[in-house]
Amino acid sequence: MKRYHLHNRPNRELTDKSEIDRILNEGKFAVISMCRENEPYIVTLSYGFDFENETLYFHCAKKGLKLDFLDSNKTVCATVIKDKGYVTDECGHEYESVVFWGNMQIVNDLHEKKHGMSILLHHLEDKNSVIKEKKLKSDEYYSKMEILKLKISQIHGKAGR
Amino acid sequence: MKRYHLHNRPNRELTDKSEIDRILNEGKFAVISMCRENEPYIVTLSYGFDFENETLYFHCAKKGLKLDFLDSNKTVCATVIKDKGYVTDECGHEYESVVFWGNMQIVNDLHEKKHGMSILLHHLEDKNSVIKEKKLKSDEYYSKMEILKLKISQIHGKAGR
Repeated sequence: MKRYHLHNRPNRELTDKSEIDRILNEGKFAVISMCRENEPYIVTLSYGFDFENETLYFHCAKKGLKLDFLDSNKTVCATVIKDKGYVTDECGHEYESVVFWGNMQIVNDLHEKKHGMSILLHHLEDKNSVIKEKKLKSDEYYSKMEILKLKISQIHGKAGR
Repeated sequence: MKRYHLHNRPNRELTDKSEIDRILNEGKFAVISMCRENEPYIVTLSYGFDFENETLYFHCAKKGLKLDFLDSNKTVCATVIKDKGYVTDECGHEYESVVFWGNMQIVNDLHEKKHGMSILLHHLEDKNSVIKEKKLKSDEYYSKMEILKLKISQIHGKAGR
């Protein structure tokens, strides 16, 4: 993925790829900005990060406003925030965050749906979670929901107050 | 502000205005979705909530990509999330959130800039904060930054796992 540089606050920029990956590995949910006919929409979704493929996977219901938006325009801009809390008396909020761009696709192939769900559950759940094996095995489970994937094309990380 | 109803998960909807106001009162930052020529962008900003005018105030630098986007299209969709943490073994994340729409305007009038900054600092800081009085008094301070306001036109609240 290409690193995206914003120039107005270079002192806050995270330039180390490992720092950016850490934020994506530690985060549990992403906030996603979409456009349809120049109208904005925002959704928050739990995700799993496929480190090797620089791709985030999400699951959702088969219908909904976000799918209508994606049907019209697959380009999204998303953020994952590590909230370290407001700093009293400094008018500042301590955080680390990434902002990234890419195309959000619906995964149709059952094999890739299973891969996405495996990434998602391994990302979110503890190593010994009982939920993982149950969900991952059942083919029927996958017919009732959508798996979305967001391949990161550009990313920008920053930290600050 | 008009309440916006999403129909696919009515059981998760927060219908009580006081619950929606509480989330806005307790939140410290909003994530904001913008569009320019159907391209999405996302920013995270600390805010103050002007309860009486159903308006959020933000402060930012005089230049930046978000101002370029707002120059092209003032309609935004934003969210404030109360993150209650991931629920292990349930593949669920406990949260309360609001999603709202409105026009984001740059405040030019010095009197309203001071009002916005007062709302912002009283929202973010403790009652006895020393920072408040210093910042609020200096006219010069206001010439170096922008105050943005987002009047809420529609809002939707939800809670869930």
